[in-house]
Amino acid sequence: MLLLVGLGLGDPDGITLRGLNLAKQADIVILDAYTSVLPEAYIKQISALLDRSITIGSRYDLEDRAADIIEQARTHNVCILVPGDPLIATTHLSLIQMALQKGIPVDVVNGVSIHTAAISLSGLHIYKFGPTVTIPLEAMERKIRSPADRILENLKRGLHTLTLLEYDAKRAEGVTVNYAARYIHEHLPQVYSRDQPSVAVIRAGFPDAVVVAAPIYELEKGEFPPAPHTLIVTGDLHFTEEEWLRLLQKAPPYLGRASRFHRKSR
Amino acid sequence: MLLLVGLGLGDPDGITLRGLNLAKQADIVILDAYTSVLPEAYIKQISALLDRSITIGSRYDLEDRAADIIEQARTHNVCILVPGDPLIATTHLSLIQMALQKGIPVDVVNGVSIHTAAISLSGLHIYKFGPTVTIPLEAMERKIRSPADRILENLKRGLHTLTLLEYDAKRAEGVTVNYAARYIHEHLPQVYSRDQPSVAVIRAGFPDAVVVAAPIYELEKGEFPPAPHTLIVTGDLHFTEEEWLRLLQKAPPYLGRASRFHRKSR
Repeated sequence: MLLLVGLGLGDPDGITLRGLNLAKQADIVILDAYTSVLPEAYIKQISALLDRSITIGSRYDLEDRAADIIEQARTHNVCILVPGDPLIATTHLSLIQMALQKGIPVDVVNGVSIHTAAISLSGLHIYKFGPTVTIPLEAMERKIRSPADRILENLKRGLHTLTLLEYDAKRAEGVTVNYAARYIHEHLPQVYSRDQPSVAVIRAGFPDAVVVAAPIYELEKGEFPPAPHTLIVTGDLHFTEEEWLRLLQKAPPYLGRASRFHRKSR
Repeated sequence: MLLLVGLGLGDPDGITLRGLNLAKQADIVILDAYTSVLPEAYIKQISALLDRSITIGSRYDLEDRAADIIEQARTHNVCILVPGDPLIATTHLSLIQMALQKGIPVDVVNGVSIHTAAISLSGLHIYKFGPTVTIPLEAMERKIRSPADRILENLKRGLHTLTLLEYDAKRAEGVTVNYAARYIHEHLPQVYSRDQPSVAVIRAGFPDAVVVAAPIYELEKGEFPPAPHTLIVTGDLHFTEEEWLRLLQKAPPYLGRASRFHRKSR
Protein backbone atom coordinates (compact mmCIF):
# COMPACT_ATOMS: atom_id res chain seq x y z
CA MET A 1 0.00 0.00 0.00
CA LEU A 2 0.91 3.66 -0.34
CA LEU A 3 1.03 5.70 2.86
CA LEU A 4 1.56 9.46 3.06
CA VAL A 5 2.66 10.80 6.43
CA GLY A 6 2.79 14.50 7.36
CA LEU A 7 5.91 15.60 9.23
CA GLY A 8 4.36 18.72 10.73
CA LEU A 9 6.11 22.03 11.31
CA GLY A 10 9.65 22.85 12.37
CA ASP A 11 12.02 20.16 13.59
CA PRO A 12 11.35 16.43 13.08
CA ASP A 13 9.64 16.16 16.49
CA GLY A 14 6.69 17.84 14.77
CA ILE A 15 5.62 14.38 13.50
CA THR A 16 2.72 12.62 15.23
CA LEU A 17 3.26 9.34 17.10
CA ARG A 18 0.89 7.70 14.62
CA GLY A 19 2.99 8.82 11.68
CA LEU A 20 6.25 7.85 13.36
CA ASN A 21 5.06 4.34 14.23
CA LEU A 22 3.75 3.64 10.73
CA ALA A 23 6.88 5.03 9.04
CA LYS A 24 9.12 2.86 11.21
CA GLN A 25 7.25 -0.26 10.10
CA ALA A 26 7.11 0.49 6.38
CA ASP A 27 9.17 -1.54 3.89
CA ILE A 28 10.32 1.57 2.05
CA VAL A 29 10.44 5.14 3.36
CA ILE A 30 10.85 8.06 0.95
CA LEU A 31 11.38 11.57 2.30
CA ASP A 32 9.86 14.15 -0.03
CA ALA A 33 12.68 16.65 -0.56
CA TYR A 34 11.03 18.11 -3.65
CA THR A 35 7.80 19.91 -2.76
CA SER A 36 9.61 21.22 0.34
CA VAL A 37 13.34 21.57 -0.09
CA LEU A 38 14.94 20.24 3.10
CA PRO A 39 18.19 21.24 4.79
CA GLU A 40 20.81 18.50 5.33
CA ALA A 41 20.54 18.71 9.13
CA TYR A 42 16.82 17.98 8.98
CA ILE A 43 17.34 14.90 6.82
CA LYS A 44 19.90 13.54 9.29
CA GLN A 45 17.61 14.19 12.24
CA ILE A 46 14.62 12.48 10.69
CA SER A 47 16.70 9.48 9.74
CA ALA A 48 18.01 9.24 13.33
CA LEU A 49 14.49 9.58 14.70
CA LEU A 50 13.15 6.76 12.55
CA ASP A 51 16.28 4.71 13.19
CA ARG A 52 16.18 3.24 9.70
CA SER A 53 17.36 3.97 6.19
CA ILE A 54 15.32 6.43 4.19
CA THR A 55 15.43 7.41 0.53
CA ILE A 56 15.55 11.07 -0.42
CA GLY A 57 12.86 11.72 -3.01
CA SER A 58 13.83 14.32 -5.63
CA ARG A 59 11.52 15.83 -8.24
CA TYR A 60 12.78 13.16 -10.62
CA ASP A 61 11.85 10.37 -8.17
CA LEU A 62 8.43 11.76 -7.23
CA GLU A 63 7.29 12.86 -10.68
CA ASP A 64 9.22 11.18 -13.51
CA ARG A 65 9.63 7.90 -11.65
CA ALA A 66 6.24 8.03 -9.90
CA ALA A 67 5.03 4.90 -11.73
CA ASP A 68 7.90 2.90 -10.19
CA ILE A 69 6.93 3.99 -6.69
CA ILE A 70 3.35 2.94 -7.33
CA GLU A 71 4.48 -0.45 -8.65
CA GLN A 72 6.50 -0.96 -5.48
CA ALA A 73 3.43 -0.10 -3.43
CA ARG A 74 1.62 -3.06 -5.01
CA THR A 75 3.83 -5.52 -3.13
CA HIS A 76 5.43 -3.39 -0.40
CA ASN A 77 4.34 -0.90 2.23
CA VAL A 78 5.71 2.33 0.77
CA CYS A 79 5.66 5.39 3.05
CA ILE A 80 6.25 8.93 1.77
CA LEU A 81 7.11 11.53 4.40
CA VAL A 82 5.91 15.04 3.57
CA PRO A 83 6.76 18.20 5.56
CA GLY A 84 3.65 19.87 7.05
CA ASP A 85 0.46 18.11 6.04
CA PRO A 86 0.43 15.79 3.00
CA LEU A 87 -1.96 16.34 0.06
CA ILE A 88 -1.50 20.09 0.01
CA ALA A 89 0.87 19.75 -2.99
CA THR A 90 -0.60 18.30 -6.17
CA THR A 91 2.43 16.01 -6.57
CA HIS A 92 1.09 13.85 -3.77
CA LEU A 93 -2.43 13.87 -5.13
CA SER A 94 -1.04 12.56 -8.43
CA LEU A 95 0.68 9.68 -6.63
CA ILE A 96 -2.56 8.76 -4.86
CA GLN A 97 -4.47 9.10 -8.11
CA MET A 98 -2.10 6.65 -9.83
CA ALA A 99 -2.36 4.21 -6.94
CA LEU A 100 -6.17 4.31 -6.82
CA GLN A 101 -6.38 3.81 -10.58
CA LYS A 102 -4.38 0.61 -10.14
CA GLY A 103 -6.43 -0.56 -7.17
CA ILE A 104 -3.58 -0.10 -4.71
CA PRO A 105 -4.74 0.91 -1.22
CA VAL A 106 -3.76 4.35 0.03
CA ASP A 107 -3.72 5.93 3.45
CA VAL A 108 -2.85 9.37 4.77
CA VAL A 109 -1.64 10.44 8.23
CA ASN A 110 -2.23 14.17 8.65
CA GLY A 111 0.44 16.45 10.07
CA VAL A 112 0.34 19.86 11.73
CA SER A 113 -0.01 22.46 8.99
CA ILE A 114 0.82 26.14 8.99
CA HIS A 115 -2.70 26.68 7.59
CA THR A 116 -4.18 26.08 11.04
CA ALA A 117 -1.13 26.58 13.27
CA ALA A 118 -0.58 30.21 12.26
CA ILE A 119 -4.25 31.08 12.80
CA SER A 120 -4.23 29.27 16.13
CA LEU A 121 -1.08 31.06 17.31
CA SER A 122 -2.50 34.44 16.29
CA GLY A 123 -5.44 33.97 18.67
CA LEU A 124 -7.85 35.30 16.04
CA HIS A 125 -11.18 33.57 15.37
CA ILE A 126 -10.72 30.83 12.80
CA TYR A 127 -14.27 31.36 11.46
CA LYS A 128 -13.36 34.84 10.28
CA PHE A 129 -10.66 33.89 7.78
CA GLY A 130 -11.22 34.17 4.03
CA PRO A 131 -9.14 32.26 1.49
CA THR A 132 -5.41 31.94 2.21
CA VAL A 133 -2.90 33.59 -0.13
CA THR A 134 0.81 33.08 -0.77
CA ILE A 135 3.30 35.86 -1.42
CA PRO A 136 5.98 34.34 -3.65
CA LEU A 137 9.68 35.24 -3.66
CA GLU A 138 10.25 38.44 -5.65
CA ALA A 139 6.52 39.22 -5.79
CA MET A 140 7.28 42.92 -6.25
CA GLU A 141 10.09 42.47 -8.74
CA ARG A 142 7.88 40.10 -10.74
CA LYS A 143 4.86 42.43 -10.40
CA ILE A 144 2.56 39.75 -8.97
CA ARG A 145 -0.56 41.41 -7.70
CA SER A 146 -3.02 38.52 -7.21
CA PRO A 147 -2.23 38.09 -3.47
CA ALA A 148 -3.03 41.78 -2.88
CA ASP A 149 -6.26 41.47 -4.87
CA ARG A 150 -7.35 38.52 -2.78
CA ILE A 151 -6.48 40.22 0.51
CA LEU A 152 -8.61 43.15 -0.62
CA GLU A 153 -11.54 40.87 -1.48
CA ASN A 154 -11.35 39.36 2.00
CA LEU A 155 -11.19 42.80 3.61
CA LYS A 156 -14.32 43.87 1.74
CA ARG A 157 -16.11 40.99 3.50
CA GLY A 158 -14.52 41.93 6.83
CA LEU A 159 -12.40 38.77 6.78
CA HIS A 160 -8.84 38.15 7.93
CA THR A 161 -6.25 36.73 5.50
CA LEU A 162 -3.58 34.18 6.31
CA THR A 163 -0.69 35.26 4.12
CA LEU A 164 1.83 32.48 3.61
CA LEU A 165 5.29 33.66 2.66
CA GLU A 166 7.25 31.51 0.24
CA TYR A 167 10.23 29.76 1.77
CA ASP A 168 13.21 27.91 0.33
CA ALA A 169 14.34 25.62 3.16
CA LYS A 170 17.54 24.50 1.42
CA ARG A 171 18.81 28.07 1.20
CA ALA A 172 17.05 28.86 4.52
CA GLU A 173 15.71 31.93 2.75
CA GLY A 174 12.22 33.13 2.25
CA VAL A 175 9.86 36.07 2.04
CA THR A 176 10.05 37.94 5.35
CA VAL A 177 7.32 39.86 7.14
CA ASN A 178 9.35 42.98 6.32
CA TYR A 179 9.16 42.24 2.61
CA ALA A 180 5.46 41.34 2.86
CA ALA A 181 4.81 44.66 4.62
CA ARG A 182 6.52 46.55 1.79
CA TYR A 183 4.46 44.54 -0.71
CA ILE A 184 1.28 45.58 1.11
CA HIS A 185 2.51 49.17 1.23
CA GLU A 186 2.87 49.13 -2.53
CA HIS A 187 -0.46 47.45 -3.32
CA LEU A 188 -2.74 48.21 -0.37
CA PRO A 189 -1.58 51.56 1.05
CA GLN A 190 -4.85 51.97 2.99
CA VAL A 191 -4.12 48.74 4.92
CA TYR A 192 -0.47 49.61 5.39
CA SER A 193 -1.16 53.00 6.95
CA ARG A 194 -3.91 52.07 9.39
CA ASP A 195 -3.19 51.60 13.09
CA GLN A 196 -5.05 48.31 13.51
CA PRO A 197 -2.59 45.54 14.39
CA SER A 198 -1.89 42.64 12.04
CA VAL A 199 -0.08 39.54 13.30
CA ALA A 200 3.32 38.15 12.34
CA VAL A 201 3.78 34.46 13.15
CA ILE A 202 7.49 33.74 12.98
CA ARG A 203 9.08 30.26 12.79
CA ALA A 204 5.98 28.32 13.88
CA GLY A 205 7.07 24.90 15.12
CA PHE A 206 10.65 25.94 15.88
CA PRO A 207 11.95 26.54 19.43
CA ASP A 208 12.47 30.25 18.68
CA ALA A 209 8.93 30.86 17.40
CA VAL A 210 7.50 34.33 18.05
CA VAL A 211 4.08 35.94 17.60
CA VAL A 212 3.99 39.72 17.20
CA ALA A 213 0.97 42.02 16.85
CA ALA A 214 1.55 45.49 15.41
CA PRO A 215 0.35 47.79 12.62
CA ILE A 216 1.88 46.74 9.31
CA TYR A 217 4.04 49.87 9.06
CA GLU A 218 5.66 48.81 12.33
CA LEU A 219 6.03 45.20 11.25
CA GLU A 220 7.97 46.44 8.21
CA LYS A 221 10.68 47.69 10.55
CA GLY A 222 10.57 44.70 12.95
CA GLU A 223 13.63 42.58 13.67
CA PHE A 224 12.63 38.93 13.64
CA PRO A 225 14.38 35.57 13.73
CA PRO A 226 14.97 34.25 10.18
CA ALA A 227 12.20 32.80 7.93
CA PRO A 228 9.84 30.90 7.76
CA HIS A 229 7.48 33.79 8.49
CA THR A 230 3.75 34.22 7.98
CA LEU A 231 1.61 37.34 8.18
CA ILE A 232 -2.05 37.64 9.07
CA VAL A 233 -3.74 40.73 7.65
CA THR A 234 -6.68 41.50 9.91
CA GLY A 235 -10.15 42.43 8.70
CA ASP A 236 -12.96 43.55 11.02
CA LEU A 237 -12.07 42.68 14.61
CA HIS A 238 -14.48 41.22 17.15
CA PHE A 239 -14.06 43.04 20.47
CA THR A 240 -12.45 39.95 22.03
CA GLU A 241 -9.96 39.87 19.15
CA GLU A 242 -9.21 43.56 19.67
CA GLU A 243 -8.61 42.98 23.36
CA TRP A 244 -6.36 40.03 22.60
CA LEU A 245 -4.27 41.91 20.05
CA ARG A 246 -3.89 44.87 22.41
CA LEU A 247 -2.50 42.50 25.03
CA LEU A 248 -0.21 40.86 22.48
CA GLN A 249 1.11 44.30 21.48
CA LYS A 250 2.04 45.08 25.06
CA ALA A 251 3.20 41.63 26.15
CA PRO A 252 6.63 40.42 25.15
CA PRO A 253 6.47 37.92 22.27
CA TYR A 254 4.80 35.02 24.02
CA LEU A 255 6.36 32.01 22.35
CA GLY A 256 9.74 30.50 21.89
CA ARG A 257 10.09 29.32 25.43
CA ALA A 258 9.44 25.60 24.96
CA SER A 259 13.14 24.89 24.63
CA ARG A 260 13.82 26.55 27.98
CA PHE A 261 10.94 24.69 29.56
CA HIS A 262 12.39 21.53 28.07
CA ARG A 263 15.83 22.12 29.53
CA LYS A 264 14.55 23.15 32.93
CA SER A 265 12.53 20.00 33.40
CA ARG A 266 15.16 17.48 32.37
CA MET B 1 5.32 28.59 32.78
CA LEU B 2 2.07 27.70 31.07
CA LEU B 3 2.25 25.28 28.14
CA LEU B 4 -0.67 24.35 25.87
CA VAL B 5 -0.22 21.16 23.84
CA GLY B 6 -2.53 20.05 21.02
CA LEU B 7 -3.48 16.37 21.05
CA GLY B 8 -4.41 16.20 17.39
CA LEU B 9 -7.22 14.12 15.90
CA GLY B 10 -8.55 10.68 16.75
CA ASP B 11 -6.72 8.41 19.16
CA PRO B 12 -3.95 9.68 21.51
CA ASP B 13 -1.26 8.75 18.96
CA GLY B 14 -2.37 11.91 17.13
CA ILE B 15 -0.10 13.92 19.48
CA THR B 16 3.24 15.17 18.12
CA LEU B 17 6.53 13.91 19.56
CA ARG B 18 7.28 17.50 20.61
CA GLY B 19 4.04 17.72 22.60
CA LEU B 20 4.51 14.28 24.13
CA ASN B 21 8.05 15.00 25.32
CA LEU B 22 7.14 18.34 26.87
CA ALA B 23 4.02 16.94 28.57
CA LYS B 24 6.02 14.08 30.08
CA GLN B 25 8.43 16.57 31.68
CA ALA B 26 5.86 19.03 33.04
CA ASP B 27 5.27 19.31 36.77
CA ILE B 28 1.50 19.30 36.38
CA VAL B 29 -0.52 17.97 33.42
CA ILE B 30 -4.18 18.88 33.01
CA LEU B 31 -6.27 17.24 30.31
CA ASP B 32 -8.92 19.62 29.01
CA ALA B 33 -12.12 17.57 29.21
CA TYR B 34 -14.31 20.66 28.97
CA THR B 35 -13.99 22.29 25.55
CA SER B 36 -13.92 18.78 24.04
CA VAL B 37 -15.78 16.21 26.10
CA LEU B 38 -13.63 13.09 26.18
CA PRO B 39 -14.64 9.43 26.43
CA GLU B 40 -13.26 7.42 29.37
CA ALA B 41 -11.20 5.13 27.12
CA TYR B 42 -9.36 8.09 25.63
CA ILE B 43 -8.46 9.45 29.05
CA LYS B 44 -7.04 6.06 30.06
CA GLN B 45 -5.03 5.78 26.84
CA ILE B 46 -3.51 9.23 27.12
CA SER B 47 -2.56 8.61 30.72
CA ALA B 48 -0.87 5.32 29.73
CA LEU B 49 0.92 7.03 26.85
CA LEU B 50 2.35 9.76 29.07
CA ASP B 51 3.09 7.22 31.80
CA ARG B 52 2.29 9.73 34.52
CA SER B 53 -0.61 11.06 36.52
CA ILE B 54 -2.82 13.62 34.83
CA THR B 55 -5.60 15.81 36.17
CA ILE B 56 -8.92 15.93 34.33
CA GLY B 57 -9.84 19.58 33.77
CA SER B 58 -13.58 20.25 34.01
CA ARG B 59 -15.31 23.52 33.13
CA TYR B 60 -15.08 24.41 36.79
CA ASP B 61 -11.28 23.84 36.81
CA LEU B 62 -10.55 25.63 33.55
CA GLU B 63 -12.85 28.62 34.01
CA ASP B 64 -13.86 29.19 37.64
CA ARG B 65 -10.52 28.04 39.03
CA ALA B 66 -8.39 29.43 36.17
CA ALA B 67 -6.62 31.89 38.50
CA ASP B 68 -5.34 28.95 40.57
CA ILE B 69 -3.88 27.27 37.48
CA ILE B 70 -2.13 30.49 36.54
CA GLU B 71 -0.74 30.89 40.05
CA GLN B 72 0.66 27.36 39.85
CA ALA B 73 2.28 28.24 36.52
CA ARG B 74 4.29 30.95 38.27
CA THR B 75 6.36 28.35 40.11
CA HIS B 76 5.68 25.12 38.17
CA ASN B 77 5.63 23.96 34.57
CA VAL B 78 1.91 23.51 33.98
CA CYS B 79 0.88 21.72 30.79
CA ILE B 80 -2.68 21.72 29.48
CA LEU B 81 -3.51 19.06 26.89
CA VAL B 82 -6.17 20.11 24.38
CA PRO B 83 -7.75 17.82 21.75
CA GLY B 84 -7.05 18.98 18.18
CA ASP B 85 -5.11 22.24 18.09
CA PRO B 86 -5.04 24.50 21.17
CA LEU B 87 -6.19 28.14 21.05
CA ILE B 88 -9.20 27.44 18.89
CA ALA B 89 -11.45 27.66 21.97
CA THR B 90 -11.59 31.01 23.77
CA THR B 91 -11.19 29.23 27.14
CA HIS B 92 -7.52 28.65 26.34
CA LEU B 93 -6.99 32.18 25.10
CA SER B 94 -8.33 33.44 28.45
CA LEU B 95 -5.82 31.30 30.31
CA ILE B 96 -2.96 32.67 28.21
CA GLN B 97 -4.29 36.19 28.63
CA MET B 98 -4.28 35.81 32.42
CA ALA B 99 -0.76 34.39 32.38
CA LEU B 100 0.62 37.15 30.14
CA GLN B 101 -0.99 39.83 32.32
CA LYS B 102 0.91 38.39 35.29
CA GLY B 103 4.17 38.13 33.36
CA ILE B 104 4.15 34.31 33.34
CA PRO B 105 5.72 32.82 30.20
CA VAL B 106 3.48 30.87 27.85
CA ASP B 107 4.17 28.43 25.07
CA VAL B 108 1.99 26.54 22.62
CA VAL B 109 2.62 23.25 20.78
CA ASN B 110 0.28 23.01 17.83
CA GLY B 111 -1.63 19.83 17.06
CA VAL B 112 -3.25 18.43 13.92
CA SER B 113 -6.58 20.20 13.47
CA ILE B 114 -9.65 19.16 11.52
CA HIS B 115 -9.53 22.65 9.96
CA THR B 116 -6.64 21.59 7.74
CA ALA B 117 -6.90 17.78 7.92
CA ALA B 118 -10.39 17.62 6.39
CA ILE B 119 -9.40 19.92 3.53
CA SER B 120 -6.20 17.95 2.97
CA LEU B 121 -8.06 14.62 2.92
CA SER B 122 -10.63 15.97 0.47
CA GLY B 123 -7.90 16.66 -2.09
CA LEU B 124 -9.46 20.05 -2.88
CA HIS B 125 -7.31 23.18 -3.24
CA ILE B 126 -6.82 24.82 0.15
CA TYR B 127 -6.66 28.30 -1.45
CA LYS B 128 -10.26 28.00 -2.59
CA PHE B 129 -11.91 27.71 0.81
CA GLY B 130 -13.98 30.53 2.27
CA PRO B 131 -14.72 30.84 5.98
CA THR B 132 -15.45 27.62 7.85
CA VAL B 133 -18.89 27.05 9.38
CA THR B 134 -20.22 24.74 12.09
CA ILE B 135 -23.58 23.00 11.98
CA PRO B 136 -24.64 22.59 15.61
CA LEU B 137 -26.69 19.74 17.06
CA GLU B 138 -30.40 20.27 16.34
CA ALA B 139 -29.69 23.08 13.85
CA MET B 140 -32.98 22.39 12.09
CA GLU B 141 -35.03 21.94 15.24
CA ARG B 142 -33.57 25.17 16.62
CA LYS B 143 -34.04 26.96 13.24
CA ILE B 144 -30.39 28.05 12.99
CA ARG B 145 -29.77 29.40 9.51
CA SER B 146 -26.44 31.22 9.81
CA PRO B 147 -24.35 28.23 8.57
CA ALA B 148 -26.49 28.05 5.42
CA ASP B 149 -26.17 31.80 4.88
CA ARG B 150 -22.40 31.59 5.10
CA ILE B 151 -22.18 28.60 2.76
CA LEU B 152 -24.24 30.61 0.28
CA GLU B 153 -21.92 33.63 0.60
CA ASN B 154 -18.94 31.38 -0.12
CA LEU B 155 -20.69 29.84 -3.13
CA LYS B 156 -21.37 33.29 -4.57
CA ARG B 157 -17.60 33.82 -4.58
CA GLY B 158 -17.05 30.34 -6.07
CA LEU B 159 -15.49 29.12 -2.81
CA HIS B 160 -15.70 25.77 -1.04
CA THR B 161 -16.93 25.57 2.56
CA LEU B 162 -15.56 23.31 5.26
CA THR B 163 -18.63 22.46 7.29
CA LEU B 164 -17.74 21.20 10.76
CA LEU B 165 -20.41 19.09 12.38
CA GLU B 166 -20.84 19.44 16.12
CA TYR B 167 -19.79 16.41 18.10
CA ASP B 168 -20.28 15.31 21.69
CA ALA B 169 -17.41 12.89 22.33
CA LYS B 170 -18.70 11.76 25.71
CA ARG B 171 -21.96 10.55 24.24
CA ALA B 172 -20.07 9.61 21.01
CA GLU B 173 -22.87 11.41 19.20
CA GLY B 174 -22.76 14.23 16.75
CA VAL B 175 -24.23 15.81 13.65
CA THR B 176 -23.89 13.29 10.81
CA VAL B 177 -23.36 13.97 7.12
CA ASN B 178 -26.87 12.63 6.62
CA TYR B 179 -28.30 15.28 8.95
CA ALA B 180 -26.12 18.00 7.37
CA ALA B 181 -27.41 16.97 3.93
CA ARG B 182 -31.00 17.31 5.11
CA TYR B 183 -30.11 20.71 6.59
CA ILE B 184 -28.74 21.81 3.21
CA HIS B 185 -31.81 20.40 1.49
CA GLU B 186 -33.98 22.59 3.68
CA HIS B 187 -31.94 25.79 3.35
CA LEU B 188 -30.05 25.48 0.06
CA PRO B 189 -32.20 23.32 -2.23
CA GLN B 190 -30.24 24.46 -5.29
CA VAL B 191 -27.03 23.01 -3.79
CA TYR B 192 -28.78 19.87 -2.60
CA SER B 193 -30.19 19.01 -6.01
CA ARG B 194 -27.13 19.56 -8.18
CA ASP B 195 -25.00 16.67 -9.41
CA GLN B 196 -21.61 18.16 -8.48
CA PRO B 197 -19.96 16.05 -5.80
CA SER B 198 -19.35 17.37 -2.31
CA VAL B 199 -17.00 15.53 0.03
CA ALA B 200 -17.72 13.77 3.32
CA VAL B 201 -14.68 13.30 5.55
CA ILE B 202 -15.60 10.72 8.14
CA ARG B 203 -13.68 10.04 11.39
CA ALA B 204 -10.48 11.86 10.37
CA GLY B 205 -7.63 10.62 12.56
CA PHE B 206 -9.29 7.32 13.47
CA PRO B 207 -8.27 3.97 11.93
CA ASP B 208 -11.65 3.64 10.19
CA ALA B 209 -11.52 7.08 8.51
CA VAL B 210 -13.26 7.33 5.13
CA VAL B 211 -13.45 10.01 2.44
CA VAL B 212 -16.47 9.92 0.13
CA ALA B 213 -17.27 12.17 -2.85
CA ALA B 214 -20.90 12.29 -4.04
CA PRO B 215 -23.70 14.75 -4.73
CA ILE B 216 -25.29 15.88 -1.49
CA TYR B 217 -28.59 14.08 -2.21
CA GLU B 218 -26.58 10.84 -2.33
CA LEU B 219 -24.60 11.67 0.79
CA GLU B 220 -27.91 12.07 2.61
CA LYS B 221 -28.57 8.36 2.08
CA GLY B 222 -24.96 7.22 2.71
CA GLU B 223 -24.09 4.68 5.38
CA PHE B 224 -21.01 5.85 7.25
CA PRO B 225 -19.09 4.85 10.36
CA PRO B 226 -20.26 6.87 13.40
CA ALA B 227 -19.39 10.57 13.99
CA PRO B 228 -17.21 12.69 14.04
CA HIS B 229 -18.13 13.65 10.47
CA THR B 230 -17.34 16.73 8.40
CA LEU B 231 -18.80 17.85 5.08
CA ILE B 232 -17.19 19.99 2.41
CA VAL B 233 -19.66 21.84 0.21
CA THR B 234 -17.92 22.49 -3.10
CA GLY B 235 -17.99 25.79 -4.97
CA ASP B 236 -16.52 26.26 -8.45
CA LEU B 237 -14.22 23.34 -9.27
CA HIS B 238 -10.84 23.65 -10.96
CA PHE B 239 -10.54 20.98 -13.65
CA THR B 240 -7.95 19.09 -11.58
CA GLU B 241 -10.39 19.11 -8.65
CA GLU B 242 -13.15 17.80 -10.90
CA GLU B 243 -10.90 15.01 -12.12
CA TRP B 244 -9.92 14.13 -8.58
CA LEU B 245 -13.51 14.03 -7.31
CA ARG B 246 -14.57 11.87 -10.27
CA LEU B 247 -11.84 9.38 -9.34
CA LEU B 248 -12.86 9.50 -5.68
CA GLN B 249 -16.49 8.80 -6.67
CA LYS B 250 -15.43 5.67 -8.53
CA ALA B 251 -12.70 4.46 -6.19
CA PRO B 252 -13.61 2.71 -2.98
CA PRO B 253 -13.23 4.95 0.08
CA TYR B 254 -9.49 5.38 0.14
CA LEU B 255 -8.68 5.69 3.80
CA GLY B 256 -8.95 3.65 6.93
CA ARG B 257 -6.28 1.17 6.01
CA ALA B 258 -3.45 2.35 8.24
CA SER B 259 -4.45 -0.11 10.93
CA ARG B 260 -4.15 -3.00 8.51
CA PHE B 261 -0.83 -1.70 7.28
CA HIS B 262 0.18 -1.46 10.90
CA ARG B 263 -0.71 -5.09 11.66
CA LYS B 264 0.84 -6.49 8.52
CA SER B 265 4.22 -4.93 9.20
CA ARG B 266 4.55 -5.89 12.84
